[in-house]
Amino acid sequence: MTTTEAAGPPVTDTTAAADGPVTEQDQGHEQGHHGYHKQKDEHLKRLRRIEGQIRGLQRMVDEDVYCIDILTQVSASTKALQSFALQLLEEHLRHCVADAAVKGGSEIDAKVEEATKAIARLLRT
Amino acid sequence: MTTTEAAGPPVTDTTAAADGPVTEQDQGHEQGHHGYHKQKDEHLKRLRRIEGQIRGLQRMVDEDVYCIDILTQVSASTKALQSFALQLLEEHLRHCVADAAVKGGSEIDAKVEEATKAIARLLRT
Amino acid sequence: MTTTEAAGPPVTDTTAAADGPVTEQDQGHEQGHHGYHKQKDEHLKRLRRIEGQIRGLQRMVDEDVYCIDILTQVSASTKALQSFALQLLEEHLRHCVADAAVKGGSEIDAKVEEATKAIARLLRT
Amino acid sequence: MTTTEAAGPPVTDTTAAADGPVTEQDQGHEQGHHGYHKQKDEHLKRLRRIEGQIRGLQRMVDEDVYCIDILTQVSASTKALQSFALQLLEEHLRHCVADAAVKGGSEIDAKVEEATKAIARLLRT
Repeated sequence: MTTTEAAGPPVTDTTAAADGPVTEQDQGHEQGHHGYHKQKDEHLKRLRRIEGQIRGLQRMVDEDVYCIDILTQVSASTKALQSFALQLLEEHLRHCVADAAVKGGSEIDAKVEEATKAIARLLRT
Repeated sequence: MTTTEAAGPPVTDTTAAADGPVTEQDQGHEQGHHGYHKQKDEHLKRLRRIEGQIRGLQRMVDEDVYCIDILTQVSASTKALQSFALQLLEEHLRHCVADAAVKGGSEIDAKVEEATKAIARLLRT
Repeated sequence: MTTTEAAGPPVTDTTAAADGPVTEQDQGHEQGHHGYHKQKDEHLKRLRRIEGQIRGLQRMVDEDVYCIDILTQVSASTKALQSFALQLLEEHLRHCVADAAVKGGSEIDAKVEEATKAIARLLRT
Repeated sequence: MTTTEAAGPPVTDTTAAADGPVTEQDQGHEQGHHGYHKQKDEHLKRLRRIEGQIRGLQRMVDEDVYCIDILTQVSASTKALQSFALQLLEEHLRHCVADAAVKGGSEIDAKVEEATKAIARLLRT
């Protein structure tokens, strides 16, 4: 969790492990993978479900379903996208942002600013 | 405005027009089609583009793209869904809600309440 | 509908009514009042409550309350503002937009476009 | 910085500082103040401006201003509240969350979960 958080790829993880107890955070970052790496399958499953919802919307439009029912389905899809974003964001804060804090220096400011801008974009849509 | 309403089942349009004075609102609603009927192709094109964005998100997750870049793409997809919803809503107000107002009676209250609830659902996501 | 319009300052109402033929729309709009006119007291009460919430936020900041608790209160105030907006919008659709539909002509298009843009602004914040 | 997070003021800070090297994050937290402490005046100014907007809304309702113009002002106030929330959140991430990361242990998970829930509440309004 200390200095070896070398964002780059070829890392001999075992040495890092030797530095001390391996926290959950470390494991997420092996080989330069981002925070969401371990939840990859879950994310893909979520996104495939959203893709199905969007195809459902096409069917609804095609079959002249009542406007309000289509709007309800749009709200559900938007909500699903927001949930996905929130989960991704949580992992990002737990891994990338926390890592930057541990490293010290000015990187934490850049990371926090970047995350806040991403949250602002989510809020403004 | 009439002839291109062909997407639905076979209809003898001209007879419908003979029933009485055709108001602007009636034309949008012939054959029980909803407000968005005429923009159907445009809506389907929009939704296919959004479907493509969701598949793009799956690729990004699969290729371990940086979290923040994925969040940016989620914001774009949410925005596209909201735009679609707004266009649908505009057509719904112009046709279904306006029709109810013209017809008179209490239907307008029900329609306006229904539309407001749909807008609330969009806002709360 | 007329006599209870008393919430405002003293007005010589009767003269305004004498200006010309009173249509259905005019009645909703007597003396140029908008759809929300009758709920005025309720609206003012809501807004005063929101003003109280904003002053509560100032107290919280002043007393160094924990950030997350302040954010919770911001969410509550935003929600209250959105509720107020939705109620105003519902009355606007029921009165101003429905009136335009009944009048016929092209005004309904302008009114619906205007309302949709207002909804878009609410969604984008 | 440890057990003395006593929201109140009179704290003997120097002992806390003696616990270890003071990082950038610590400085934001002296005397148990939260991340937003240094921007307090700016926050209060923002909130007073929002309070003024809410009072402006009351005036608009009282003077029977056109519904759509009131909705525009509601959108502006909501946007101002969201901006305030985002700034507070940025400071919270930079200080409280980053501090928890530096401290190590499981606190970071709790802090990140708490922040994510606050963001979810902002998104859902």
